[in-house]
Amino acid sequence: MYRAPVEEIAFTLKHVAGLKPALDAGTFGDLGEDLVDAILAEAGRFATEEIAPLYKIGDEQGAVLSGAAVTTPPGWKALYRRWIDGGWNALSAPEEFGGQALPTMLGVAALEMWNSAAMAFGIGPTLTMGAVEALDKHASPALKAKYLEKLVSGEWMGTMNLTEPQAGSDLNALRARAEPAGDGTYRIFGQKIFITYGEHDFTDNIIHLVLARLPDAPAGTRGLSLFLAPKFLVGDDGALGARNDVFCSGLEHKLGIHASPTCTMIYGDGFEGTVPGAIGWLIGEENKGLACMFTMMNNARLAVGMQGVAVAETATQKALAYANDRRQGKAASYDGDGMAPIVHHPDVQRNLLTMKALTQIARAISYSCAHAIDNARISSGDEATHWQERANLLTPLAKAFATDVGVEVASLGLQVHGGMGFIEETGAAALYRDARIAPIYEGTNGIQAIDLVARKLPLGGGEHVRGYIAELKAVASQVRTSNLQGFGRTADGLDKALDNVCEATRFLQGLLADGRSDEALAGATPYLRLISLAAGGAYLARGALADQSRIALCRFFAENLLGEAGALKERVIGGAESLATASKALISAGTS
Amino acid sequence: MYRAPVEEIAFTLKHVAGLKPALDAGTFGDLGEDLVDAILAEAGRFATEEIAPLYKIGDEQGAVLSGAAVTTPPGWKALYRRWIDGGWNALSAPEEFGGQALPTMLGVAALEMWNSAAMAFGIGPTLTMGAVEALDKHASPALKAKYLEKLVSGEWMGTMNLTEPQAGSDLNALRARAEPAGDGTYRIFGQKIFITYGEHDFTDNIIHLVLARLPDAPAGTRGLSLFLAPKFLVGDDGALGARNDVFCSGLEHKLGIHASPTCTMIYGDGFEGTVPGAIGWLIGEENKGLACMFTMMNNARLAVGMQGVAVAETATQKALAYANDRRQGKAASYDGDGMAPIVHHPDVQRNLLTMKALTQIARAISYSCAHAIDNARISSGDEATHWQERANLLTPLAKAFATDVGVEVASLGLQVHGGMGFIEETGAAALYRDARIAPIYEGTNGIQAIDLVARKLPLGGGEHVRGYIAELKAVASQVRTSNLQGFGRTADGLDKALDNVCEATRFLQGLLADGRSDEALAGATPYLRLISLAAGGAYLARGALADQSRIALCRFFAENLLGEAGALKERVIGGAESLATASKALISAGTS
Repeated sequence: MYRAPVEEIAFTLKHVAGLKPALDAGTFGDLGEDLVDAILAEAGRFATEEIAPLYKIGDEQGAVLSGAAVTTPPGWKALYRRWIDGGWNALSAPEEFGGQALPTMLGVAALEMWNSAAMAFGIGPTLTMGAVEALDKHASPALKAKYLEKLVSGEWMGTMNLTEPQAGSDLNALRARAEPAGDGTYRIFGQKIFITYGEHDFTDNIIHLVLARLPDAPAGTRGLSLFLAPKFLVGDDGALGARNDVFCSGLEHKLGIHASPTCTMIYGDGFEGTVPGAIGWLIGEENKGLACMFTMMNNARLAVGMQGVAVAETATQKALAYANDRRQGKAASYDGDGMAPIVHHPDVQRNLLTMKALTQIARAISYSCAHAIDNARISSGDEATHWQERANLLTPLAKAFATDVGVEVASLGLQVHGGMGFIEETGAAALYRDARIAPIYEGTNGIQAIDLVARKLPLGGGEHVRGYIAELKAVASQVRTSNLQGFGRTADGLDKALDNVCEATRFLQGLLADGRSDEALAGATPYLRLISLAAGGAYLARGALADQSRIALCRFFAENLLGEAGALKERVIGGAESLATASKALISAGTS
Repeated sequence: MYRAPVEEIAFTLKHVAGLKPALDAGTFGDLGEDLVDAILAEAGRFATEEIAPLYKIGDEQGAVLSGAAVTTPPGWKALYRRWIDGGWNALSAPEEFGGQALPTMLGVAALEMWNSAAMAFGIGPTLTMGAVEALDKHASPALKAKYLEKLVSGEWMGTMNLTEPQAGSDLNALRARAEPAGDGTYRIFGQKIFITYGEHDFTDNIIHLVLARLPDAPAGTRGLSLFLAPKFLVGDDGALGARNDVFCSGLEHKLGIHASPTCTMIYGDGFEGTVPGAIGWLIGEENKGLACMFTMMNNARLAVGMQGVAVAETATQKALAYANDRRQGKAASYDGDGMAPIVHHPDVQRNLLTMKALTQIARAISYSCAHAIDNARISSGDEATHWQERANLLTPLAKAFATDVGVEVASLGLQVHGGMGFIEETGAAALYRDARIAPIYEGTNGIQAIDLVARKLPLGGGEHVRGYIAELKAVASQVRTSNLQGFGRTADGLDKALDNVCEATRFLQGLLADGRSDEALAGATPYLRLISLAAGGAYLARGALADQSRIALCRFFAENLLGEAGALKERVIGGAESLATASKALISAGTS
């Protein structure tokens, strides 16, 4: 069972992702290391002792729909109550509405722990926090006053309603419509699918944020507006009133995260005697819904990245424990009695070290992204621009690389368990199932790679990414000048990988400048993995420079896993033409 | 839904794996291309029309245990009956007992189709065929006379009972025991787990092959004997008699292949009033059970490799169909109305081409292994030795590489479906679940890699593998001298990859010669993937030389996927030391 790796998390925050220098510099006011440690320890305790024990029943029983009501698995509602009573929902929410306004870095670290303990639990509050951010930034004072405090405390939860059957990755195709009622409110009609925690029994009210089109709105995403539609209308005194016409009509039968209800939501069908048309309030300006929604989406992407880190961590712990317990065969390095624990077999070691290294890298990238978000918020001028660009650059890495790592590590973890891994009771298979959604939702990883190449490489006139690579190169130099023997060929490996990143970056920036974006996009996915691996190697090295007990794993990564960078660069630079040529045969007659 | 790719299979058999030259040379007597095509077409029809439609109910309802009886999903028993009535069980079985004695190549091609249509169906007869082979090679004439004909026809099914809770990969630790009854029979006692189709309702009798220890047998695998224990005793007239004391006490709750009953079998507990002790007959000599079992295991490994190919094929078909149907966004290459089918997006194309190329490669390696098995059987002297070594070399590649490909391709296929992929009804998730067992059973892929390095590289004094690489190099030369433009940098890529294989092979052979086997084993898994990718590239090229419409995919593979070879070679050659150093931290106090 999962035990929150509080020390590892604290180390990565402080010594790899930049929290220690920030605390020392007073960046976060009087927030000090002691308080950080105390918060992490308590979050770790909650995740380990309260959430993790409810994982299995959540997976086995799942959320259940009866009529339009969803019941969460036994014990989950009480768990959620204990969780908000602990103040965890408010951790990085604005103080004005009762939040603790702690750094995103801390919020993200805690989020990792909730998701490690049970991803189906961790996902719910993520949506609430997205709603808080969107309302805080874009809503009218009246809406804020009515909803934010209860969303910050967690007394109500929020949702994010984008997807429709014909519109997943492409929001241009959204059809849900909103009609002005003449009294400042709107009536919303349409169907939304894949709505996470769209309906449940955790809270008395659920606050839906919905994208819809006003009459005469322009086609495409420029005609989308964002609305707030609560499950129950809320009086000026905060009391719950009539049931709004938004109902759950179905739950998806999913591969994993069974306890998280994935709902089809019907707006405006006059269900259960309601007046047809879900009553909604505009958030922000008309036809500017997408910008408001992006506030939610960017941070949701980092949050999904944390799910990748989280599942990878749990899978690694589980496999490591099993490998130390299970005995099979003989091993040269084992001189005890009887069969050797399988952790002594080189092939098992390779799997476990790969899992550890990838998990640490995904964590370091994600925390560094949170660090940039924090810095962007508290700085101004050029500095704020710099950190916002950094956050923007790292978000697709955190989302896509970390969630790919989640799948990869969960699969390796299952493999370490041998035949037992395929048996559901062991628990390794459930992680393999849960992990698989994260590369898909909040923008598929393919779309993250396109975002990285098409929108993030050009940041700062192309200079931002070059500056980032230069920072990573400086770490390689530090390794070299450290003269520490244990690093082996780490510095060479890092330099080579970063040279590959430079070359691939220049190449893609050149294609974009020439308007050859299809060729650039053909290399987007390999490029995302390339820069992530190289950055990850540098982060491992930074950690190893701060704590020499970490050198061995860093070296393993550099000498065993970082070599992939060369092949990835070749794909970016030389893969597009053959991809385009071979793809002709993929297209069926009639669809071309 | 799956449609058997009969043409693709026939092409690979004939023009890549060597069937056409063999048929032309009369290697298989009067077997001609027409009959081969007819058999493949009819197998394809059966898989597509009869098996595939029952996949979903098999996955959803699974096999069910009640008392000690297992019921297969609705329709499956009748399906099995139609399948044996078609003669499919007897396809490559010995003629003496009613088999058709067709080449293993054909048997393996048909096996791919059964498994593509429903892996949980395809796995059952694989065990029966293993039992047929073991009995045919090692059993007494009396046992053969009593059991073989009905196992060949499929009227009875066979099983393979090795694993016990404490003994999975390490058969030394087996404890099941067999006591001589004094009348030439034995009484077997013990528990076996993970027994595929150990109990079911397909057939009236089930013939278990069981490894157990005689009293006073030496410890370890040299003390294992193989026994035949039928579910019902069989009279000399072939009539079924008393129930034998071997019972199913539990079914595993598995991640995938739900319709395949995975049984815990209890021998000798006197269940249901039977006389305690399962009555068994010795197969082969006392204490030579492992050698007999290996007859089953080697071919079972190729059969499991086919499951990897099979799932990859189905996943690819499914993703390709979805990508041509689902529309999202705009694409430069699409000038039709409305949103573009997602197959027009370069990132989706990259996934689909990767899936196609990996599937074709895994198929080519596996069929080539079958080709070697066929040639070994029908030739003699040095030639037989050569082909047996080739079969031995390719078996771990077929098993491990193809099943890794199965998981990789099923995961990519799920990704192509976006959010729909995570919904069970879509069917992509089920393939991702099914695929995951194949890298584990019949010897984990880690063990296959160890087998490859420790036992297969030394074949023929180390010459055999070098000869194989030389054959692959000749294909690269043919590509170069063909001067066909469409190949792009294929020849260069192949040469480079094969040079990497050469270097890695020499390096590992050197370590083995120096007795540094732990260092060699650290690189075993990367080496297996390295040689598989390089061989696969050569097989794709061989196919492309025979049919130029295949050049584009071959080039895509060479220019996009084959580059991984360089990194794999580096891992083999330079990865062991850092792996050993970093692994120290994996071992818990108390287990070292």
